[in-house]
Amino acid sequence: MNNQITMTLNVDHLLLQALSEDITSEDITTNSVMREAMAGEVQLICKQDGIIAGLQIFERVFQLLDDTVEVEFYCKDGDFVTAGQLMALVKGDIRALLSGERVALNYLQRMSGIATYTNSIARLLKGSKTKLLDTRKTTPNMRIFEKYAVKVGGGYNHRYNLSDGILLKDNHIGAAGSVTKAIQMAKEYAPFVRKIEIEVENLDMVKEAVEAGADIIMLDNMTPEMMKEAIAIIDGRAETECSGNVTRENVERLLDIGVDYISSGALTHSAPIMDISLKNLHAV
Amino acid sequence: MNNQITMTLNVDHLLLQALSEDITSEDITTNSVMREAMAGEVQLICKQDGIIAGLQIFERVFQLLDDTVEVEFYCKDGDFVTAGQLMALVKGDIRALLSGERVALNYLQRMSGIATYTNSIARLLKGSKTKLLDTRKTTPNMRIFEKYAVKVGGGYNHRYNLSDGILLKDNHIGAAGSVTKAIQMAKEYAPFVRKIEIEVENLDMVKEAVEAGADIIMLDNMTPEMMKEAIAIIDGRAETECSGNVTRENVERLLDIGVDYISSGALTHSAPIMDISLKNLHAV
Amino acid sequence: MNNQITMTLNVDHLLLQALSEDITSEDITTNSVMREAMAGEVQLICKQDGIIAGLQIFERVFQLLDDTVEVEFYCKDGDFVTAGQLMALVKGDIRALLSGERVALNYLQRMSGIATYTNSIARLLKGSKTKLLDTRKTTPNMRIFEKYAVKVGGGYNHRYNLSDGILLKDNHIGAAGSVTKAIQMAKEYAPFVRKIEIEVENLDMVKEAVEAGADIIMLDNMTPEMMKEAIAIIDGRAETECSGNVTRENVERLLDIGVDYISSGALTHSAPIMDISLKNLHAV
Amino acid sequence: MNNQITMTLNVDHLLLQALSEDITSEDITTNSVMREAMAGEVQLICKQDGIIAGLQIFERVFQLLDDTVEVEFYCKDGDFVTAGQLMALVKGDIRALLSGERVALNYLQRMSGIATYTNSIARLLKGSKTKLLDTRKTTPNMRIFEKYAVKVGGGYNHRYNLSDGILLKDNHIGAAGSVTKAIQMAKEYAPFVRKIEIEVENLDMVKEAVEAGADIIMLDNMTPEMMKEAIAIIDGRAETECSGNVTRENVERLLDIGVDYISSGALTHSAPIMDISLKNLHAV
Amino acid sequence: MNNQITMTLNVDHLLLQALSEDITSEDITTNSVMREAMAGEVQLICKQDGIIAGLQIFERVFQLLDDTVEVEFYCKDGDFVTAGQLMALVKGDIRALLSGERVALNYLQRMSGIATYTNSIARLLKGSKTKLLDTRKTTPNMRIFEKYAVKVGGGYNHRYNLSDGILLKDNHIGAAGSVTKAIQMAKEYAPFVRKIEIEVENLDMVKEAVEAGADIIMLDNMTPEMMKEAIAIIDGRAETECSGNVTRENVERLLDIGVDYISSGALTHSAPIMDISLKNLHAV
Amino acid sequence: MNNQITMTLNVDHLLLQALSEDITSEDITTNSVMREAMAGEVQLICKQDGIIAGLQIFERVFQLLDDTVEVEFYCKDGDFVTAGQLMALVKGDIRALLSGERVALNYLQRMSGIATYTNSIARLLKGSKTKLLDTRKTTPNMRIFEKYAVKVGGGYNHRYNLSDGILLKDNHIGAAGSVTKAIQMAKEYAPFVRKIEIEVENLDMVKEAVEAGADIIMLDNMTPEMMKEAIAIIDGRAETECSGNVTRENVERLLDIGVDYISSGALTHSAPIMDISLKNLHAV
Repeated sequence: MNNQITMTLNVDHLLLQALSEDITSEDITTNSVMREAMAGEVQLICKQDGIIAGLQIFERVFQLLDDTVEVEFYCKDGDFVTAGQLMALVKGDIRALLSGERVALNYLQRMSGIATYTNSIARLLKGSKTKLLDTRKTTPNMRIFEKYAVKVGGGYNHRYNLSDGILLKDNHIGAAGSVTKAIQMAKEYAPFVRKIEIEVENLDMVKEAVEAGADIIMLDNMTPEMMKEAIAIIDGRAETECSGNVTRENVERLLDIGVDYISSGALTHSAPIMDISLKNLHAV
Repeated sequence: MNNQITMTLNVDHLLLQALSEDITSEDITTNSVMREAMAGEVQLICKQDGIIAGLQIFERVFQLLDDTVEVEFYCKDGDFVTAGQLMALVKGDIRALLSGERVALNYLQRMSGIATYTNSIARLLKGSKTKLLDTRKTTPNMRIFEKYAVKVGGGYNHRYNLSDGILLKDNHIGAAGSVTKAIQMAKEYAPFVRKIEIEVENLDMVKEAVEAGADIIMLDNMTPEMMKEAIAIIDGRAETECSGNVTRENVERLLDIGVDYISSGALTHSAPIMDISLKNLHAV
Repeated sequence: MNNQITMTLNVDHLLLQALSEDITSEDITTNSVMREAMAGEVQLICKQDGIIAGLQIFERVFQLLDDTVEVEFYCKDGDFVTAGQLMALVKGDIRALLSGERVALNYLQRMSGIATYTNSIARLLKGSKTKLLDTRKTTPNMRIFEKYAVKVGGGYNHRYNLSDGILLKDNHIGAAGSVTKAIQMAKEYAPFVRKIEIEVENLDMVKEAVEAGADIIMLDNMTPEMMKEAIAIIDGRAETECSGNVTRENVERLLDIGVDYISSGALTHSAPIMDISLKNLHAV
Repeated sequence: MNNQITMTLNVDHLLLQALSEDITSEDITTNSVMREAMAGEVQLICKQDGIIAGLQIFERVFQLLDDTVEVEFYCKDGDFVTAGQLMALVKGDIRALLSGERVALNYLQRMSGIATYTNSIARLLKGSKTKLLDTRKTTPNMRIFEKYAVKVGGGYNHRYNLSDGILLKDNHIGAAGSVTKAIQMAKEYAPFVRKIEIEVENLDMVKEAVEAGADIIMLDNMTPEMMKEAIAIIDGRAETECSGNVTRENVERLLDIGVDYISSGALTHSAPIMDISLKNLHAV
Repeated sequence: MNNQITMTLNVDHLLLQALSEDITSEDITTNSVMREAMAGEVQLICKQDGIIAGLQIFERVFQLLDDTVEVEFYCKDGDFVTAGQLMALVKGDIRALLSGERVALNYLQRMSGIATYTNSIARLLKGSKTKLLDTRKTTPNMRIFEKYAVKVGGGYNHRYNLSDGILLKDNHIGAAGSVTKAIQMAKEYAPFVRKIEIEVENLDMVKEAVEAGADIIMLDNMTPEMMKEAIAIIDGRAETECSGNVTRENVERLLDIGVDYISSGALTHSAPIMDISLKNLHAV
Repeated sequence: MNNQITMTLNVDHLLLQALSEDITSEDITTNSVMREAMAGEVQLICKQDGIIAGLQIFERVFQLLDDTVEVEFYCKDGDFVTAGQLMALVKGDIRALLSGERVALNYLQRMSGIATYTNSIARLLKGSKTKLLDTRKTTPNMRIFEKYAVKVGGGYNHRYNLSDGILLKDNHIGAAGSVTKAIQMAKEYAPFVRKIEIEVENLDMVKEAVEAGADIIMLDNMTPEMMKEAIAIIDGRAETECSGNVTRENVERLLDIGVDYISSGALTHSAPIMDISLKNLHAV
């Protein structure tokens, strides 16, 4: 997010598409009353406490509309901001400020909501060895933004998508014939830089997975006790992950298990937005 | 959503893009262990009570991957479904079922979450003349899905985007010079099939807007009392809308004001997802 | 047209596509003889009297090819220009001037042709309350340019497309069951900012449409007498439009009917182009 | 046009884009009143005499919307059709018939207009050795359709675009230094399958062009007498073309000159459309 | 390659683009002489011995042009085929067979050339523990095809691209400050499913890399003796790779070093094509 | 290649696509260790003797990533460069230099390989009247680069694709009925600026082709003696081309036949790359 290359190759086309979703011919309201450019500025104000994320995206939306827009930032991604705080000043043709406002805020609010929610869980894990992971339960066509927001909030990223990470689940194991065979087939087939992760449901599978050389073992549907036992069996020979409806409310039960990673779909699919607005637009 | 034309022209490219976001080269896990097609089926199960929305989208995701996938539905969009309910059976090549699962659910869960949340507010408005509206506070590149989900949940749609609806706000009024001038300029400029909506902040503006021929008047930042007075002044000569941080928790204070429409950004920006999963995948 | 935002989001890709239609690998003639950039200028000359429209598009075509091209304008969209008039001077690399000439003129000639033809009818309506509208009978992939040209010529725009305006025709009414039901279904289904227009063929339908709350009533296939009667029945409770093969030659019969709008497909489908050329290209 | 390959590679994306121009979210009118598919049919009726062109495009528009639409044709491209003639029957879901109607007709009317106008000039040339050519003065993003329509009307195509034909004009000659040098440079640079065409303004240039090995010589701005003299000089050593504001009204002055080709921009930029409509839509 | 999903999401658009590169308006030769479909068939014949790769791509090219084309295969990807061997029979409209031939063969020849060349090196490694890897030195916009061909030939894939694999080179180490810091920063930043690979130039770096927890160590610019020493130091705590201008001619010197992987850019950048042709096209 | 217009319209989208193939989310290695821009420079060094081609493409790749990158060239396309030669200095944000390196080199190496190989054959033809041509046997989605490289190496281009050149082969002749009919049908159908080329296999066909007015005759599968006879028959009335597995090793047998053109697929399908690298990247 913080570099030009990522923007150009993997972000701009999404921002332009979102802008085109909002402007299919022209912004008729603004064009009705403002036929000529008029210099102006508007304040970006936080209306809730939280972790801000997506400031570069917010800026880029305006610049894609009109490359003369400039944003003066008074905070940066990852900062804890508080209700009422002036976070930035946006300057440019008022028409661009009006036409881009909604899309820019739709990104910023959602990304900041995710960063804030992630942070609230990550703080609970502080002090333990356990790290918080996201999942692929992201909003369609928003993954690059949402995974970034998780990192800003203090979480870590799981695989980006189905092409860059192996995760063998029960149906894959069934198709392969056994845990061992599934791991072997994945090692044979996938690019050798991939770690092999496998989802296991009982301690026999845990043992088989470790011996077959799994890099990561996901403990699924296990009681905390069973997870502890599994981790003892694994004994550092593979990384461990646990998953399953983890939220801020229920994460603490997992703290003393000693698992390496906890993944939570809620980070990206159920974080409420952070309320942010553009205020005091005026000509200059 | 429920017809082929909308899918072809305005939905498929978004679904394919979401699938490409999740599969940038291939699904390496599935392709490691399944080199050939294998017929299978999987159940779509609801894990929470709510209003289901997006079943056609769910189906389409699989069919775009593999046009031989078939879905047998046991419910339809708008139905109230309950935890544990079998909603559909998906049949086809297991590889398509595995590779499409996440994207299909990401859409369905989010759309059903919005329908369910919308419905919970719309039910509060039942009996009153007031209708519930969405806003442009949608997730980028998700508008067509989210606006549809609002309707499934019993809400109504406000303008789709900046090109197909006029909404004159304070800065537009300022640029035009007055409420009256802003309305005149919009009538002169915009396609004649557009209704003219204007946001007003006090009773003088209300009067001026009505007389200048506004079709819709949005009452912004007014107390309930002031809104009632405004509605009395308007007296049916324009439709009325009120807005501003409306949620399930605070909507009831607006019930007896007699406003035609209440719009709520929360419908699309803060509805939690509905938990839905694919279970019991097996070969057939 | 006159702002950067519309260009970026909804115009540039069409211009680039038109340029790519004309240059699928390279401009082999120009590249054969000019291996290096050479500064030059060329005059934009009008060869016919008329209303000019599309100057920004003309300029943008060159700038998309080579962002150092500059155009000095001596007139603006909407001006009445006369044969022989120097309208602009285009300066830049001669290769860009040669390679972009045809596409730039293809747009400008067609847009100015439409503005000129529209203006010739709009002038006939002057003094009456009746306004001239375009239709959806535009050239495929040219709508944004052609609708703009209609406005430059003094006409008004009807709905932009099938998504942003309701127009209930006989088949819609048939499917709904009656005029009243069709109007109700449209009000229930469409975004609430849409006006409801309905096409009627007799006075009973007129009455029913007015009572059902139609916003606009299109009088189709009626004699001037019948139209007058319909307008008397409507009595200001809805706007009125009449349509049907309206051209410059036959529009005057409709002048004293008192209809609010007359729509004419000929504005966009049959206006002859305005002859314009680039002359006196020379190195500087 | 008449084969699947051309459609797939070079036509479909333009048709889909035109459909998306007309349906940016959904056809709200049709979807308001028809929630389910309903089989129907509609007649394609000619309202003017002329040469029909574009029937496959007309059909394809509907099939891209809904692949179950079928068209039964009673005539074929190039036929002379007369006012009132039933040209085809279109059968399918009425929603597809309604939503696709305008775009399908916009193509067909324009293409038939061009074929008809072209034919009216081509018939004047019958008996002479002279053939009628189109130019690059086509509507942006319509070239493949318009050039095809010219052929249907009895005309011939000039180069398709700047990449597949050489045409050395005065500025190219100037940059090269002389007619001879320009021709040599083009022969050296361009793919060897290209014919070299050069535009000449006087008899000295004619001589030089012939001797330098031009394949085609365009006689520009010459009187009929001068053209005859030029053709005598060329004496079959190169093909000859004359150009310049050729229309149906003024083409006959060029008939006895003995030029091989006459090119006319009017074929594509100023042909009026042919009036065609869809009538009697009804359920079946 | 062997499944529909990969084709749809990540292959078809490349094949269509290649076809559009070859057919910018239409196949004028074929369309000149064949106005109607004509059923035919043609034989796919190998003209050289080698490993065939890309048969599904070959078939798909034709089917994208015309979905009625059918291919009967007599061999499959990975088979060793010999000069003169009939590999497949392609049946369909002769126009599709002619228009698609070149693009289909351009893919098949190149992919089979890579598989054949890869195989010739992989066979040399047989018996050793060392596996052969490709690199990112692929032809632009051909990576998915070329990496697949390497696997068909018996090689293995290195990372697919810059997003799905970590490879810390000297400049990255320099920017981080040390080998240890670079590895730590990568572990902190990258998705946790990524292996960390680092390129080292001397034995001190080897030691530091192992201790910092590198997953893969690339031995760069080392003599065979030094490599052996490095591998002894690493002692199974990380995987090892050696690189640097490896070709069929010089690979044997690396055989007894005991490295896990040898990567070779030549596999994809310098394999000569395999000669294959379509013969005996005839109507049926 | 050497002008902005070709880049913008027909090159940039391919370069961006190649970059996106290599960076599907972000360059995780570089972004792990370099969070901020850092100015640097790197040398472009030749590691083999040869003809350099593609320097503008090399530069453009970096500039598309980051428009502040600058390249200082010490040679130009077509120069003979030698191992160890410093060809250019690339300056900019080190992150852009690292992220763009591979794609930029993948183009440059391949293009220079083709130019070098072409040049090695073209030099053998020097002194004869015969020119060396490429074919359509190019790498998919690389044609514009490969055809340019052929010209840089001293070769000439055959038709660009199926749309801009006629080449009647045996199946076309068969479908038409005879050589004469095929030529007539092509003249009637194709744009008149196309030369008509026909492939012949015996002297009767040669005679018929010349008399029917073929512009170019391709002598296929003929012995050198037969080719000489064919050329004597043609006697300058058409251009002549011979084809068929021409490589550097076997081209000399064709030198004294007196054919106008020899075409060779090997130029583009089997040229080995030229080894080039970026060295000594350092901060400045």
